[in-house]
Amino acid sequence: MAPPEEGSDVLVLPDPPRGPLHAARARASFCWKELALFLEGEDVLRFKNAVFSALESDPLFAHPRGSDLSVEKYQELNFLRCKRIFEYDFLPMEDVLGIPWRIRALVECLGMYDWSLATKFFLHLLTFGSTIYISGSERHFKYIPKIFSLEIFGCFALTELSHGSNTKAIRTTAHYDPTTEEFILHSPDFESAKFWVGNMGKTATHTVLFAQLYTPGGQCHGLHPFVVQIRDPKTLLPMPGVMVGDIGKKLGQNGLDNGFALFHKVRIPRQDLLNRMGDVTPEGAYVTSFKDVRQRFGASLGSLSTGRVSIVGMAVTSLKLAVSIALRFSATRRQFGPTGEEEVPVLEYQMQQWRLLPYLAATYALDHFSKSLFLDMGKLQHGLLGNDRSATQAELGREIHALASAGKSLASWTAQRGIQECREACGGHGYLAVNRLGELRNDSDPNCTYEGDNNVLLQQTSNYLLSLLGRRGPGGPRVESPLKTVDFLESYPDILGRRFTGSSPEDCWDSSGLRCCSQLPEGRPWSSPPPSPESTSAAGVSTEPRLGRPPSRLSSICSRSQQRTC
Amino acid sequence: MAPPEEGSDVLVLPDPPRGPLHAARARASFCWKELALFLEGEDVLRFKNAVFSALESDPLFAHPRGSDLSVEKYQELNFLRCKRIFEYDFLPMEDVLGIPWRIRALVECLGMYDWSLATKFFLHLLTFGSTIYISGSERHFKYIPKIFSLEIFGCFALTELSHGSNTKAIRTTAHYDPTTEEFILHSPDFESAKFWVGNMGKTATHTVLFAQLYTPGGQCHGLHPFVVQIRDPKTLLPMPGVMVGDIGKKLGQNGLDNGFALFHKVRIPRQDLLNRMGDVTPEGAYVTSFKDVRQRFGASLGSLSTGRVSIVGMAVTSLKLAVSIALRFSATRRQFGPTGEEEVPVLEYQMQQWRLLPYLAATYALDHFSKSLFLDMGKLQHGLLGNDRSATQAELGREIHALASAGKSLASWTAQRGIQECREACGGHGYLAVNRLGELRNDSDPNCTYEGDNNVLLQQTSNYLLSLLGRRGPGGPRVESPLKTVDFLESYPDILGRRFTGSSPEDCWDSSGLRCCSQLPEGRPWSSPPPSPESTSAAGVSTEPRLGRPPSRLSSICSRSQQRTC
Repeated sequence: MAPPEEGSDVLVLPDPPRGPLHAARARASFCWKELALFLEGEDVLRFKNAVFSALESDPLFAHPRGSDLSVEKYQELNFLRCKRIFEYDFLPMEDVLGIPWRIRALVECLGMYDWSLATKFFLHLLTFGSTIYISGSERHFKYIPKIFSLEIFGCFALTELSHGSNTKAIRTTAHYDPTTEEFILHSPDFESAKFWVGNMGKTATHTVLFAQLYTPGGQCHGLHPFVVQIRDPKTLLPMPGVMVGDIGKKLGQNGLDNGFALFHKVRIPRQDLLNRMGDVTPEGAYVTSFKDVRQRFGASLGSLSTGRVSIVGMAVTSLKLAVSIALRFSATRRQFGPTGEEEVPVLEYQMQQWRLLPYLAATYALDHFSKSLFLDMGKLQHGLLGNDRSATQAELGREIHALASAGKSLASWTAQRGIQECREACGGHGYLAVNRLGELRNDSDPNCTYEGDNNVLLQQTSNYLLSLLGRRGPGGPRVESPLKTVDFLESYPDILGRRFTGSSPEDCWDSSGLRCCSQLPEGRPWSSPPPSPESTSAAGVSTEPRLGRPPSRLSSICSRSQQRTC
Repeated sequence: MAPPEEGSDVLVLPDPPRGPLHAARARASFCWKELALFLEGEDVLRFKNAVFSALESDPLFAHPRGSDLSVEKYQELNFLRCKRIFEYDFLPMEDVLGIPWRIRALVECLGMYDWSLATKFFLHLLTFGSTIYISGSERHFKYIPKIFSLEIFGCFALTELSHGSNTKAIRTTAHYDPTTEEFILHSPDFESAKFWVGNMGKTATHTVLFAQLYTPGGQCHGLHPFVVQIRDPKTLLPMPGVMVGDIGKKLGQNGLDNGFALFHKVRIPRQDLLNRMGDVTPEGAYVTSFKDVRQRFGASLGSLSTGRVSIVGMAVTSLKLAVSIALRFSATRRQFGPTGEEEVPVLEYQMQQWRLLPYLAATYALDHFSKSLFLDMGKLQHGLLGNDRSATQAELGREIHALASAGKSLASWTAQRGIQECREACGGHGYLAVNRLGELRNDSDPNCTYEGDNNVLLQQTSNYLLSLLGRRGPGGPRVESPLKTVDFLESYPDILGRRFTGSSPEDCWDSSGLRCCSQLPEGRPWSSPPPSPESTSAAGVSTEPRLGRPPSRLSSICSRSQQRTC
């Protein structure tokens, strides 16, 4: 199926239908179309329009009204939809690396439709596919076209029943047997079952499996990823030695088939070790091209960050939906008011504003952060793929790890609490399933847990900050980082000494009272192509401004006559 | 069906099966059986044992394993279970008023099993039944035996699609027609549809309907309750002029059939007005025995408080379950630890304690508050039924309204946040449906909304406190209330001047640093029979101590040999 047309030369943002919200919209002091163009850029808006139009026109994506799908049926439907998304080819192979903003924009579109679909699609394409591409080498590239054609369907198996955060305690083993040049994969007990693995429950044929690598003689080299076939792609029956199944109903995302797997002395070829970080020779010697453990660790952290950076975007997307639902309801729901007159929209009450507007503000702030972090992550991966072994690349890996860890926690908790506040602020109607706030809350809830429990992740960021601070001092190095996000620590005694001295409401409204530690860059839309290697500094980090631009093609989307109504 | 035997003379609290929790339990510094007896009292423990034993032995209450019930099937099963609870006769007619603690204990047992069942049972028996009993008069008592025999099945219809909190804006009308001595019930538009009404969706045959009462000449006397038949008990088909149905899937409590209803000029006999607050003569004159509006309003507030007092207990019950699940998991889940040794239970980590133990403490505190408030509410209802029109009875109504409003908000939010924290503290496993934390969160969530949005209710309590404070001052009356919960306001300038002066960890651990504004009463178990009218003071409020007693029959439940293992 050809990718749908992304529209004519003129970008059209259709006006919303005239309904009960019209009165509130008419009072806006700005043009929403200008804002949308400013925030997203024209390319992203066109792309999103194309995706949404395709889904709207395709009966497979119609929400079954009034029905109550069983988990089984929902998972089946979700797989069919996932397949259809590949048929639409929204994200062809060359765009995954070439036009990275499309990944983020497609996550957002699919997530707005249904998180079970978004996670199913991206677990296969990115978590499974990118891990093979990034952690493997040329001998693994044969898998890539099969991923795009859905000849194989993949998942990512790290977590076990008894161990998640403590990855060093993962128990699945991979013993190398030089006589047959194979690895023997084994789960020593039921607690070492791979667990929670998205797509593994019913649909995955292959997995990237993390296991402790042992070479002959019994030396353990730590966790390494392997590509392993777990089901026959024709029958979906398990491969010999593999016990695999679905873990059962969850609080949300039930369209996704999360699974478990146990391996009983399953043999795979030596070549199926994803060998970027370390490899085993046919004779059984362990080899790695990384000079020291610290470097190797920094590079691994970088790849762990991908999931967390995605989660920041996912959390913000859910919050966008929830805040929109709650604010639109609040602008039309009327309660109490002057005797004899029409009741007042609840949005006019200070209480409702106090409950919802901070989450609206948080949505904009986190959306900006999410885009910016996504671009920084792209640079890190760029260096990783280019085999950049510089100290700065390693430092960038650590900084992004710290940013993604704290950012994922902040964004997922803000979304969790924000959606809950939206649910409550809509009263009983917020509790009706059809109004979607519950589904958003339940589907977003695992963002607080997977890819690292939020509390544990915050400690990772704390460790990073404390280690930088520990190195600071008379004669010590300045505190600075590739992205400059921690440079403020250099002047922390001064910052801690500052006090807000405002005493009137006007002082509080004065935005200069909010002291930024650093200037946010501005000037280019976030979806601009990534800077070419030449334009990056020696640190591998672009110093170009990145976000925000004045709308350039405004006249084409917002004519004078439209401006009156938008 | 005869009520099940409540056990032999000797109360037996069985030891838990010896499993992975044994090590943690063996380290307890107290005997859990003594604590259970101290907190609950023997009668309550016996009653709960009887209820749980009955449910455990009855296949109708078996949780269908691995199945995924449709909403339709779940509602059907829930009704059958509700019917069976009536057959067990846990709460015979004479006990509802005579042994009020049984109501609370049964709510707790049924809620621990499934909130959909608890709400279905109590909406019929108490919300519907008690409203008829308390708001009606002898001419309505004919309904009571039919409620217990399930000849009729009831619901409580106050909220409308467009109005909940603003009850004055409720639009359903009841025009009195003296020519036929009937009321004509009418819903003027779809926004005036009764909405959210539990049991109305599929099963209720009758409702207590709130409508604006109009007498001939067009004078409106405000909201009044009517008993109205909405379905034929044999066929469950709607009565003529009634459009009734289910509102659809919710975020939780889907075993309960919440419904809507519209009335098209439905005629009911004059006698079906529940006439305790006000009545209409055959000729069409409005009569009320209340001297002034303030008195009538205070008395109404008292009856509104019943639901809120129940919600405090419901919220605490959910929190008990969640905290138990999370703490037990945390005592057996091991992550990280000294190299080469067994990993450490996550409960041993400060972080996990910091996340969970405050909610454990809150559970005990709120449980005590819930029982105490329940007893106070009983006294209020006692006075209401005895037609106590004293100023103190009215003052008690206002105080309990303020306590129940703030208490319901505090308890429901604490439970909502606590369950969420428990869910997250259990990591991925907290997200599996089988571990129940999601169900508890989703089923408890409406506690924040129904019977008054929490934020709105807090304003009710604020109004009460500010009005008391407004009356205070030189020459003004002392701030005091029947239950003495606000007497601390009398010395608020002194209290506000106090500062915590501790500087060491020991100072923080010293419980005398927590200054209580009033002494909590103690000395009798909460399940003691309510004081007889003779033992109450002139204020209608008992001055007897109420809660806590040394365990008297300890030897019978906790023998020397048992103490070693408990």
